[in-house]
Amino acid sequence: MLKVIKFGGKLLENEASLRAVATAVARTLPRTIVVHGGGVMATRLAEKLSIEQHIVDGRRITDAATLDITVMAYAGLANKRLTAALAAQGAQACGLTGCDMGVVRSTKRPVQQDIDWGFVGDVQQVNDKALRMLLNSGYTPVLSPITYSAEGLLLNTNADSVAAAVAAAMSREEEVELVYCFDKAGVLRDINDPDSVIPEIDEQLYAELKREGAIFEGMLPKLENAFATLRKGVSRVRITAPDSLTGGTVIKL
Amino acid sequence: MLKVIKFGGKLLENEASLRAVATAVARTLPRTIVVHGGGVMATRLAEKLSIEQHIVDGRRITDAATLDITVMAYAGLANKRLTAALAAQGAQACGLTGCDMGVVRSTKRPVQQDIDWGFVGDVQQVNDKALRMLLNSGYTPVLSPITYSAEGLLLNTNADSVAAAVAAAMSREEEVELVYCFDKAGVLRDINDPDSVIPEIDEQLYAELKREGAIFEGMLPKLENAFATLRKGVSRVRITAPDSLTGGTVIKL
Repeated sequence: MLKVIKFGGKLLENEASLRAVATAVARTLPRTIVVHGGGVMATRLAEKLSIEQHIVDGRRITDAATLDITVMAYAGLANKRLTAALAAQGAQACGLTGCDMGVVRSTKRPVQQDIDWGFVGDVQQVNDKALRMLLNSGYTPVLSPITYSAEGLLLNTNADSVAAAVAAAMSREEEVELVYCFDKAGVLRDINDPDSVIPEIDEQLYAELKREGAIFEGMLPKLENAFATLRKGVSRVRITAPDSLTGGTVIKL
Repeated sequence: MLKVIKFGGKLLENEASLRAVATAVARTLPRTIVVHGGGVMATRLAEKLSIEQHIVDGRRITDAATLDITVMAYAGLANKRLTAALAAQGAQACGLTGCDMGVVRSTKRPVQQDIDWGFVGDVQQVNDKALRMLLNSGYTPVLSPITYSAEGLLLNTNADSVAAAVAAAMSREEEVELVYCFDKAGVLRDINDPDSVIPEIDEQLYAELKREGAIFEGMLPKLENAFATLRKGVSRVRITAPDSLTGGTVIKL
């Protein structure tokens, strides 16, 4: 089964956790596509450059200066560090942003409820043929969340959404598991108990957990998106930590 | 004939000249590999971040902080801007650094005459098979001069050298023209007369011009490198401006 694995930018910050991510990914090869974030790096770079950042609902408002920062942090630092770390693990990785091979095309987000998001993209189309060509030739695509519009604009895009769109597009021709990898072991029944990982959630259990108020608020949109992606043909979604890419919580319809 | 076209970073600086470069490249497709610099962007970013730069003989001494700057400027900004601009021209461009698909592997330059170059790479090996796969599938490789070592180090590498190594490697299976594109119309007989472009230089004429002292000093190493590349199997080297990719000065053995 093809795996689309998304890593948060936090996991790419230091050498040790970067190496841990690369080692974990190497074990899943050859049929893997990696998608990564890099928000922490972008925020730090913006601070150093004294460019004020505005984040609304976890999304970065992206003016021209901030777009340059995200391109440098995501498509530059985060993408190339991860690609080189994978190469050192013997993987034939290929770092890409959406504009490369037209892998992820998006549209510039219109002004919404008086918020001008600037250079923010919403995914429109994934070039699954190009990704499949790379995979079939033994290359591991490593995708940064910078996409592009038909007019040639670079656009800052949510990495979770890129991963979901890539997984859905790839699922048209093969079975796909989408893995969201972050610094928790999975979906917890008790946010204060790291051992309370729920191994499997289907729509029925999800409804119950929501009724009980048992799910941590930040997890709700992730689960909603997971179910939406499953409805697009992805076989299963997994939420887990990098040291356990086959563990954590599996979400199924 | 395959063209390997190298653009100086200065040409990618503003929207107008970026578009001119993209338009010129689009006319040479489909059999083109682009290599670009980005030194001007790196220097500007370093200034903004107050990270002092040391340039020796036109080469940047690359400590860890400067490596990050070159990765952000070359593999991030310059590479993605150029790739997106090419996409807007209808090209299926694929931006790459050396670590992507193992396209250009290098070795870290040892300390030379008391100069520790830091994270600077000297090209060791080009994955011409990967570049050929992209070209044969209709994709235009766009290479930034960040390479990588077998240990997974990212290394800052001279863009002219990357272009020469790529051209030489590709010439093993097909005829290759290497084009150095910068802000002069070609090799000038009189540095003060932009109309004095020498249309063709072979080794005999080169020896004469050197004897006469007719060649501008900065051009000498470029010509020496051109002859070295021709001896490696490249059919011809051209030095020209972006608005005249079939003009300028042709260098032949």
